[in-house]
Formats: sequence, C-alpha cells, structure tokens
Amino acid sequence: MNSSIVRIIVGQVLKVEAALLLLPCMTALVYQERAGWYYLLTAAICLAVGFIFTLRKSKNDVFYLKEGCAATALSWIFLSIFGALPFYISGEIPSYIDALFETVSGFTTTGSSILSDVEVLSRTALFWRSFTHWVGGMGVLVFLLAIIPLSGGSNFNLMKAESPGPSVGKLVPKVAYTARILYTIYLGISILELVLLLLGGMTVYEALLTTFGTAGTGGFGFLNSSMASFSPYLQWVITIFMILFGVNFNAYYFILFKKAKKAFQMEEVRAYFLIILAAVAMITGDLVRTMDFSNALRTSAFQVGSIITTTGFSTADFNVWSQTSRTILVLLMFIGACAGSTGGGIKVSRILVLIKTMLKELNSFLHPKSIKKIKMDGKPIEHEVVRATNVFFCTYMMLFAISVLLISLEGHDLVTNFTAVAATFNNIGPGLELVGPAANFGFMNSFSKIVLIFDMLAGRLELFPLLILCHPVLWKEVISRKSKIVQSRNLDRKY
Amino acid sequence: MNSSIVRIIVGQVLKVEAALLLLPCMTALVYQERAGWYYLLTAAICLAVGFIFTLRKSKNDVFYLKEGCAATALSWIFLSIFGALPFYISGEIPSYIDALFETVSGFTTTGSSILSDVEVLSRTALFWRSFTHWVGGMGVLVFLLAIIPLSGGSNFNLMKAESPGPSVGKLVPKVAYTARILYTIYLGISILELVLLLLGGMTVYEALLTTFGTAGTGGFGFLNSSMASFSPYLQWVITIFMILFGVNFNAYYFILFKKAKKAFQMEEVRAYFLIILAAVAMITGDLVRTMDFSNALRTSAFQVGSIITTTGFSTADFNVWSQTSRTILVLLMFIGACAGSTGGGIKVSRILVLIKTMLKELNSFLHPKSIKKIKMDGKPIEHEVVRATNVFFCTYMMLFAISVLLISLEGHDLVTNFTAVAATFNNIGPGLELVGPAANFGFMNSFSKIVLIFDMLAGRLELFPLLILCHPVLWKEVISRKSKIVQSRNLDRKY
Repeated sequence: MNSSIVRIIVGQVLKVEAALLLLPCMTALVYQERAGWYYLLTAAICLAVGFIFTLRKSKNDVFYLKEGCAATALSWIFLSIFGALPFYISGEIPSYIDALFETVSGFTTTGSSILSDVEVLSRTALFWRSFTHWVGGMGVLVFLLAIIPLSGGSNFNLMKAESPGPSVGKLVPKVAYTARILYTIYLGISILELVLLLLGGMTVYEALLTTFGTAGTGGFGFLNSSMASFSPYLQWVITIFMILFGVNFNAYYFILFKKAKKAFQMEEVRAYFLIILAAVAMITGDLVRTMDFSNALRTSAFQVGSIITTTGFSTADFNVWSQTSRTILVLLMFIGACAGSTGGGIKVSRILVLIKTMLKELNSFLHPKSIKKIKMDGKPIEHEVVRATNVFFCTYMMLFAISVLLISLEGHDLVTNFTAVAATFNNIGPGLELVGPAANFGFMNSFSKIVLIFDMLAGRLELFPLLILCHPVLWKEVISRKSKIVQSRNLDRKY
Repeated sequence: MNSSIVRIIVGQVLKVEAALLLLPCMTALVYQERAGWYYLLTAAICLAVGFIFTLRKSKNDVFYLKEGCAATALSWIFLSIFGALPFYISGEIPSYIDALFETVSGFTTTGSSILSDVEVLSRTALFWRSFTHWVGGMGVLVFLLAIIPLSGGSNFNLMKAESPGPSVGKLVPKVAYTARILYTIYLGISILELVLLLLGGMTVYEALLTTFGTAGTGGFGFLNSSMASFSPYLQWVITIFMILFGVNFNAYYFILFKKAKKAFQMEEVRAYFLIILAAVAMITGDLVRTMDFSNALRTSAFQVGSIITTTGFSTADFNVWSQTSRTILVLLMFIGACAGSTGGGIKVSRILVLIKTMLKELNSFLHPKSIKKIKMDGKPIEHEVVRATNVFFCTYMMLFAISVLLISLEGHDLVTNFTAVAATFNNIGPGLELVGPAANFGFMNSFSKIVLIFDMLAGRLELFPLLILCHPVLWKEVISRKSKIVQSRNLDRKY
C-alpha cells in the first residue's frame, strides 16, 4: 500500500475544498451575513491541512486500485469532516454529529436532513448546504482529475472508484480529458436549468440552490415545503431536469459529438425512460381519484422523477398516498438512475444485467449446451462485469440488511427503519413514516445517525471503496510499510 | 422437450397421492367421521387420472434438466390441485382457492393458513392438512425415486429440481439408494420425536400431527393457539426437533456411517447453529425485561428455531415484540435453514457462499493478481455453484419485489405485504401485522392468494422449475413436437 500518494490526494482535495468554501463567503458578502467568517475560517483550516498533507512528495508513483479506493474513501470522509465545521462553529447546527450527517448527506447527494426548520438557517449556510450537492454530484475526484494533472500512475483507478455504475466508460483515452468533458456537460445542463428557472420567476438565489439540488440529484430544499410552493411551470422544469441528470452522461457525449442515434440506442437510457413512464402512469391513475388530471400527472411525474433519480425533492407528502403508490416509490428507490449519471441507487444498467443473467440462466435450463453471451447495446458484456454486478447486488443486500438491523435497535417501526436505510443508502433523501417527506432524521440517536452516515457514503461510492478502507489487511500493509521505513531509517543512522 | 415422460411422472405422482390419501381415510375410521368418504373419493379420482396419464408408455427415455424441472413443477401443481379437493367437496373450506392455498401451504411446508378457527375442522381434515407437510418436507419425487425405479435417463435431474440448496450432493452413486437413505433418516428422526412427544403426555393423534409439522418444517397447528398451550417439556422437544430437521441431512448420513467428525466440520451446519445461538441470545436479552429468564429463553429459542427452519409454529405472538426482535426474526426468515434439509429460505450455505464471494471481491481490490478460489469445508467450490448462487439470489430478490408490488394492489400496509411475501416465499407461515402469528391469510382477495400460492411453490422448488414451466420456449417446443407427431402420423396414413 502506497500511503503517501493517498495522503497527497487527500491533501489536494482539501485544497479544492478551501477554494469551494469561498463561494459561501461571497454569498455572505452579498447578503451581509456574519456567518461568512466561519466559512473563511474553515477554508483557512482546509488550506493549512491540505498544505501539510502535500508538503512531502511521494517517492513512489505506483498507484493501484486499492490506492484509488483508499484515496477516494478518505477524500470523501475528510471533505465531510471539514465541510461540517461551519455549521457547527456558527452554532446553526449545535451538534457536530448532526452537522456531519447534514454535510455527508449533502456531498453524497442524499438530501436527508436532520433540520425540522430550514428557513431559520442563514442564507450562507443554505447556499453551502445545497452547493455540496453540486460538488458531490459529479464527484470531487473527477473534478481534481479535470484540473490537476496527477503525477504518474493510472489515475483511472480514482475515477473508477468514484464513478457510479458497473463499468466505467472512458469517453476518450485520456482520463483528464474525459473528466473535463463530463464537467463541461454537467456545467452546461446546470446553466440551462438555471436560465429556465430564472425565466419562471425565481430569484437568482433560489434558482442557484434549486439547480445545485437538481444537478447533483441531491434534494436539499431551502423552504420547509420543499418544492410544493412553486408554480406548475417551475415544477415541470425541475421534473424534467431531475430526469435529465439521471441519464447516463455518455448519452450527452454522443449527442454532443453528433452521434445522437447511438445515444437513443442505449438500452439503459431506454429502460430508464420506460420505467419512468410506467411508474408515472400507474401513480397518476391512482392520484386522479382525488385530484384533477393535470395536477395528478404533475405531482406523480415530479415524485417519480425525484425518487428514481434519487434527488428527493417533494411537492406532496407521498407518505399519505395509497399503499400501491408507496410500494412503487419504494421499488424505484432501489432501481435508481442510470450509471454514469449523478444519481444513486442500484442503477438501471445493473438491473438490466441482472435480468439478462436471469434469462440466460433460464435458457441454460432449456438448452444446457447453449453458450450465448449476455449482450448490452448489441455488444457482449465482459464476464467480469456480469460477475461484479452480481457480487455488487449481493453485497448491497447484505449491507442493507445489517443496517436495518442496527437501526432497529432504536425501536422505531419497521417501515421507518427500512425506508430510512433505503433513502440514505440509495442517496435519495426522504423515506416513509417517521422519515417521510414532511419529516426529518433529527429524532434519531447518534448511533443510528452514524450508521446512516456510513450508508450514505457507501451508497455514493458504491460500497467497495468504503469496505476496502475498513479492511484490516489494508491497515496491516500501511503499518508494516511504516515500520519498514522506520527500520531502514534506523539502519541508515547506524551505519 | 420429451413431454410423454413428464406425463408419466406426473401420473405416477398422482398414484402415490392416491395411496397417501388412504391415511386420512384410516383416521376417519378411527374417529368415525363421515369426512373419510371424501378422501376415498379423491383417492379414486387420483388413481383414475394417474392411470390415464401412465397408460401410454413413452417411446423415448431421454430425460434432461428441462424435463426434470417441468415434471417437478407439474407434479407439485397436480398434487396440490387434487389434494385440495377433499377440503372443498366436504365443504370444510367452502372456497376452492382457499382450499388450494391451504393445500399448497401444506405440501410446500409453508404453514400459512386461511383458517381463523382450525379447531372446528374434522380430525380427518386436520390429519390430512398436517400430513401434507410430512410428504412435502422430504419431497414427493424423492419418495418416487426411492420406491419406483424410473426407466432410463438421468433421474438425478428430478432430484436436482426438487432438493433444496445450491448443489445437490449424491450421498452414494445411485440416485434411488440416495433417496432411500434420505427417507430412512427422515422417518427415523420423525419416530424419535413422536416417542418423545408421547412420553411428554401428548395423545397419539396430537403427537403425530405435531411430528408431521415439525419434520416437514411446515407449521400447521391443530389448536388455535398453535403450540402455546403445551408444557415446557413438549415445547423444548419441538424446539430441538425443529432445529434438527433444519440441519443438512448429509450430516446425519455422516454420523450414521461413522464419520461424525466430518459432520461436525461442515461449515454450513456450524454457521447454522452459530446464527441460532446469536439470535436466541439477543431475543432472550430483549424478552427477559418482561418475563423470567427460563420463560424468555424457551420462548425465544422456540421462535428462533421455528422461523430459521421456516417451520412457523408459535408459542407467543411475536408481532407484539420489540422492533429489534421483530427485525431479527425478519432477517432469519430470509436466511432459512441448511441446504439439504426440509427447511426453506435462501439457505445458510448460499449465504455463506455470498459472504465468501464478497470477501473474495474485497480481496481482489487489495491483491488484483490473486487467484484464490472460494472454499467450503476445505474444498474449492466449483465456479458453476458460485455463479448459480449469485443468479439465484438476484432472481429471488426480483421475484420478491414483484410479489410485494402485486400484493400491495390490495392496499394493506407495507409490513403486512412485505412479511406476507417473506413468509410464503420462504415457506415459513406467519408474518407480521395482519398476517402475524395470531392472525391468518383468509382476509386477502383471490388475486393476492394466487400470487402467494405461486410464491409458496416457487420458494419450495427454488424458483427455476416453476419459472421454466412459465417459459414460452418450453411450450413452443411441446406444441411443435405435438404437431410433428401429428404430421408424421398423417404421413404414415398417407403412405
């Protein structure tokens, strides 16, 4: 384990965070809020720590998948630990665990909140809270790759560890260039939404915060009613952009480079839209009994878009909907958005691979000698991807079960526990019952919050980076390397 | 697809059922109940249909996995359709769907009931109801293999389709001999339990019905209070035998043939007992707050044994227990008993394979070039078994999700829907809330009951035989073969 390169990457991430923290400082200047000082102070701390971490250069540039995983997991953890400081030292969130929960929920684009009244927060705090969504959406390491040329090694492993989906597609051979294209598309669609929201009559501040939440498929609102008070036009804009940010970004790349046909042929994207259409149709049919059609369609489209893309905005309290609609939403929570999007969940492409594996298995019962390969978009899928998808799914379910058990120790009802884990593990935000869209996670005890913080990070980083970080073998390697270095230094001194 | 061999097997199964139906007839004689005539009538119908089915011999003995699956699935379906007749024509269960639900629940050793008052049933009906558990426990095709030498072909495919677990171990090279050993062990432990129950003061009738329910890990009670009214001694006997019937029968084979050491080294059996101990400890710790220790220990051991082995007897209404205990029980519902036992669920060995696959995946992140194989009981597991286990788990979860969605159409609460599917799919019996141990499935509508009937059969036959039977390709083959035969006959006539 090459721990010095991991240290350097974490250091650089902290420097980036210092820069990002200047944005809320500017918000504070605009609105003349004292809170800005806390953000400036945190920026200084991040810069200092980042500087210390990157002081000593790494002699060795060797960079394997384990270093990628460790660096990614640690980066996100440090990002959150420092990102929570302004909430805590300003006193806006008096408990540090709560502040950490809120920050992890922000960076992982979950959007679960511990706040019962967000409207009392300073505008600076609300800005930072929503901005973490935008940063976490495309990923901070992808950002790092786009701006800083990391020295040596295959930095593709970093991207692999942070990007969602069963297989990472390098759009172009160079990782840095891929990262830049991704961020350009991300920024482009974000600006488009911002403009459309401004045209609908939102203030710049509201439009910015809404865009951050939509683009990162995060879901932090800045009003207690989430998005319910906005006009039908604005709700439709948000609905459409939530769904757009849940699409595999490769599709946009294809459209951008005049291969639109290829984009529309992507099986994952087609399945994604098909699921959305089916779910909206079913829930609209259910809601139309209690409201007029246009209202029912808008409400169901908003909620389906919000849940499948794992954003978590709401315009209605779906906790009081019929059991069928609630069950559909719970199933959507698990499916999630497309791979290579900013959304969470298991991902549509994984579900497709699983269904195809199942059909292939059935087929092997009928024709034992058949050696057909599973295909996606017309091309056979590598055996490695199929295997990894299966393992991912099983690991996912096991972590899920353990989390529900741990949360149940607090004694709330089964639906609350189950959907609290589903909402955080899939990076959605609200669940059902006590953690429904009209409620929040503030009532839970610290132990449950720590479990859910782990789930949010594990969900965003797709399990393995975080599990690797908890693996004793990794730490043994770090320690044994350290002791070797100390030994060799002692030897140097002797002779 | 060789459909004539499938027809013959189903015919033979029906003949076996005719013979089995004579046992409730004898019960009717003993207790002088009129109901016996309905069982005799049904036996005659089974014999007649079985006779018609086996009239024309199969010209072709070719027997592949698909024929094995189709024969198994159809055997179980016919077995249930005819087995439900006496309940219906005697009027003891006035709706045929209800009678079918009860019979499928019996044969699949589920133990979910639609009856709110079992004590009004005739003794003959109660006997048949519990006896289906005993028949379904070890499997009717395994029984067939043990007594009738099936002509030609690899009848191992039949055993593979009916036996639970990721890989079927032939104890000895000959299938018929393996089947006979299994039934001998099954009968032996059943008789042992019967004797111990009689010593505890049960009547012969009570002891027989309790043994049937325990041995098949079924769970139909013959008192409305299930097992709560029995003495602590009897409850402990039932607890121990439930757990014993959940052990992989290979272990008993090893003990029988003086390889006891090998039995105790079986990883699955060790894990199974470890899980039971952990669950009992946790739930006892929870219950001890409201009752004395010996009571808490007995109650928790009984319930843990009942749920993990998927029996479903109860001595307490665990629906009113704390959320932690309820969650533990729900998790045990999914784990299930050992492979090669009479219990249901995912099976401990599959869980072990999944955990080992996960650890191997983590290891591959740390050491990408390592090619360690996953081992079980010291021997490497074939890649095929690992793959099949992963596919099984994914298919299981998908069928589970679809079932919950379909049940939710009826509008009950999420916990009821979720645990109703969990209890039937894993062949347990009672769930939580509306389908808790103090309640029953009678209130559900026919559609939900049909979904749950499918789930019970799919759970008992481990998904694929039933899915194969629903596969259009299979039916296309059957039809195209039929038309080919008709064509060739027409050709015969022409020339």
